[in-house]
Amino acid sequence: MLPNLYTCLSPALLHTYPVSDSIVVIIDVLRATSTIATALFNGAESVVPVISVEECITAGNNNNCITAGERDGKVAEGLTYGNTPFQYTKSFVKDKTLVLTTTNGTKLLHQALNSNAAEIITGSFTNLSAVCNYLIAEQRDVVLACAGWKDKVNIEDTLFAGAVVSRIKEYFKIECDTSKIAETLYENARGDMFYFMKEKEASHYNRLMNYNLEEDIRYCFGVDLANVLVIFKDGKLVAG
Amino acid sequence: MLPNLYTCLSPALLHTYPVSDSIVVIIDVLRATSTIATALFNGAESVVPVISVEECITAGNNNNCITAGERDGKVAEGLTYGNTPFQYTKSFVKDKTLVLTTTNGTKLLHQALNSNAAEIITGSFTNLSAVCNYLIAEQRDVVLACAGWKDKVNIEDTLFAGAVVSRIKEYFKIECDTSKIAETLYENARGDMFYFMKEKEASHYNRLMNYNLEEDIRYCFGVDLANVLVIFKDGKLVAG
Repeated sequence: MLPNLYTCLSPALLHTYPVSDSIVVIIDVLRATSTIATALFNGAESVVPVISVEECITAGNNNNCITAGERDGKVAEGLTYGNTPFQYTKSFVKDKTLVLTTTNGTKLLHQALNSNAAEIITGSFTNLSAVCNYLIAEQRDVVLACAGWKDKVNIEDTLFAGAVVSRIKEYFKIECDTSKIAETLYENARGDMFYFMKEKEASHYNRLMNYNLEEDIRYCFGVDLANVLVIFKDGKLVAG
Repeated sequence: MLPNLYTCLSPALLHTYPVSDSIVVIIDVLRATSTIATALFNGAESVVPVISVEECITAGNNNNCITAGERDGKVAEGLTYGNTPFQYTKSFVKDKTLVLTTTNGTKLLHQALNSNAAEIITGSFTNLSAVCNYLIAEQRDVVLACAGWKDKVNIEDTLFAGAVVSRIKEYFKIECDTSKIAETLYENARGDMFYFMKEKEASHYNRLMNYNLEEDIRYCFGVDLANVLVIFKDGKLVAG
């Protein structure tokens, strides 16, 4: 029998899914999970996701740590580095630990932890193939968990869920309507996702464009640009 | 300045919208809000939405009342009439009060009431034009509130939200991503919504087909078949 695949469009709906029996894929395309994949792809030893800026500063009080964080799309007050994937080049992150706090993605990851997720990985277009190959190989139930924006559903995370559904649906039993909504959205956008975001005036597209972050958005819709499996182990996200 | 329009895909997300300043449109296409429109279109004096089967039986202890209810898609235990719009013909409901309890729609209506919604109407394809005309005329903020299925997002309610967005978007400021997701879904389905539900194997399509309710589904996707405004006043839904 095929395992189940579900798509959860908002952290506020996570309780309606069988998280404790599933691999939970944390999705925060703009930009947390894209940045995390990039850092690990470029040789960071691990990424430690933390909830608060204070925790971030405390946890980073070590040699070999970079502390970084974002609130409302900007570098968090009290931190030097933010959430742009371009920051995390090989020369900057190799063999370092990145301690990271973000508005939605790292919060959802902790929510999944508190819900006793069987396993947690993170997903973004930058590591789409690694995510899909892993999910196919594991043959377990999957919850694609979109971080959204402060409990609201957003287009970009839904698009990524749709891309995963589109790629791996033959290996899963998919009875949930949201997976089909996500896939339909993705089929409409896949030709040019950046243009789709622009045309739809997606909320976070507008927010990031206002901060002159067009290149960040374009990068985050690039498929397999940092194609590494990102898996949560012993309190850290590491390359799988 | 144009008023805002939002789409809320699940009752569990209602708290993230400015309900108390908005007209809330309760959407439960299969079948509560379609049945309610049909009963009022056919001359019912009012529809009283109640939470529990017990309340339904108590409230219906009057001449001139019909008690009806549905749980999990079937006639609720203890009640004679269910949630099929075909039951509520002119000869059956004219000048009667219909006391109704359903799995999702009536529950969401009470949730909107408890959240101090500025105004409540109900929406379905059967009264799409009445809903759209009213929202355009009122020039107030709007929350399109999908009932879904036990807090999960479903395709049919999202499609209706998308149909409303598609029709009235020029009269509103629409910044929420979900309205755009809903509209995109609707644009994919509008040619033949019954076929779209079938092709996507929508969860409630499957559930109702298993109960041999194909005609109910077809009716509920019929535009303006019971084109009356349904508005909540003094504890009752009445024709506006």
